[in-house]
Amino acid sequence: MKLRIYVSYVGTAYCGYQVQPNGVSIQQMLNRAAEEVFGFPCDIVGCSRTDAGVHAFGFCATVSKRGEDSLVTAIPTERIPLALSAHLPEDIRVYDADFVDEGFHARYGVLEKEYRYFVWNAPILSPFKVGRAYHFPRRISDGGLEAMQKAALLLCGTHDFSSFMAQGSKVVSTVRTIRRFTVAREGDKLVFSVSADGFLYNMVRILVGTLLEIGERKRSPEEIPAILEARDRNRAGSTAPACGLYLWRVTY
Amino acid sequence: MKLRIYVSYVGTAYCGYQVQPNGVSIQQMLNRAAEEVFGFPCDIVGCSRTDAGVHAFGFCATVSKRGEDSLVTAIPTERIPLALSAHLPEDIRVYDADFVDEGFHARYGVLEKEYRYFVWNAPILSPFKVGRAYHFPRRISDGGLEAMQKAALLLCGTHDFSSFMAQGSKVVSTVRTIRRFTVAREGDKLVFSVSADGFLYNMVRILVGTLLEIGERKRSPEEIPAILEARDRNRAGSTAPACGLYLWRVTY
Repeated sequence: MKLRIYVSYVGTAYCGYQVQPNGVSIQQMLNRAAEEVFGFPCDIVGCSRTDAGVHAFGFCATVSKRGEDSLVTAIPTERIPLALSAHLPEDIRVYDADFVDEGFHARYGVLEKEYRYFVWNAPILSPFKVGRAYHFPRRISDGGLEAMQKAALLLCGTHDFSSFMAQGSKVVSTVRTIRRFTVAREGDKLVFSVSADGFLYNMVRILVGTLLEIGERKRSPEEIPAILEARDRNRAGSTAPACGLYLWRVTY
Repeated sequence: MKLRIYVSYVGTAYCGYQVQPNGVSIQQMLNRAAEEVFGFPCDIVGCSRTDAGVHAFGFCATVSKRGEDSLVTAIPTERIPLALSAHLPEDIRVYDADFVDEGFHARYGVLEKEYRYFVWNAPILSPFKVGRAYHFPRRISDGGLEAMQKAALLLCGTHDFSSFMAQGSKVVSTVRTIRRFTVAREGDKLVFSVSADGFLYNMVRILVGTLLEIGERKRSPEEIPAILEARDRNRAGSTAPACGLYLWRVTY
């Protein structure tokens, strides 16, 4: 059996999930903690490669002995989250753990992923939201909000999302299925929630950047089908910053 | 006319609101920003003296020219929050401003103050709540929550709160009126909200510390009248840490 851990982190101080030549990654911290707790080097496989500055609530990863597909430990499963957290910096926490079959893959086994994106839409950014939401000071009107909601609905379904993928990334297929995409105003916040079977590189940030241009009435929601059709990154809007993005939940 | 400003701050990096010989205070930062924006030294009077590490959502303060009871500026009132915020560190923000009579006093004119206290009641502290809530890992049961709610009701009304005042503080009267005191569970959080005509030194933190002992069933809510009656700090519970406390709102 492999160990599966549920991880929450504030991404601000990290170069992203994945181990990188420069900068400290979440994976590196998890690797170090696992080795200290279990007493041997481990392989960590994460559900996603979040970028620098991106946060996570419900990140999942598997832990196994290096080079093997299983992990054996005498530590009771319910004590593992506390044990691993004790060896992690306070901006990364393992809050749950269970064991899964050796064939389970944290990345390829994902059925659905949900991301949320938080925008602080008021002239002054709350000091509690520094690095934790994208500050967009120009007020999105109620009509602009409705236009974003309309665009979000047009993006739902199975499409080739090439126009919403950062250039330079290699994937077998650029077709993805967005199952749910909502935009809501909660006081000074705008909350974007999007669930799909998978996401292309920077896809959520480009979706949000495009929707905000629609919210400002610089574009119309009716442009969405043509943007999708074009399969051209230059046709979509700008990439919203990493600090507003949260990997919210993963379903296997 | 005096300028009144509405301030929100993350208190973690500060020695408290008030200027202190050691450490950086919120007041000091406001003073510096006001002098830079208005071009002359100013007097800042705050609504409250929050402790080191305590946060604020709706802090109020007045700004006047040093030694005078008024402030004259050519800056349009609606642009003052942005102008002051531009000269403040990102964990302090002025989000609103208006002008009030010269006789207005930010501290003595307070009719009611509301504080909130956030407890993270789960084995693992969310990385997003570090320094922003008190981590209380032992689960408070539903019965314990009801006992805290009962105790909160018994604390409402006009009482001598000497038992809930930190020793060494000097006040004319230790009688205060709590108008509203609620305790609610929101997922992994416990939220304490207390409104009163005023608070003694460390009063909210001692109230919360005492309620948590009641929540753990180390004490019974029926002890509250006797604790009040005793006028003895040693009869109440421990002082909950500063990081969970938020000055929420001030009413004039």
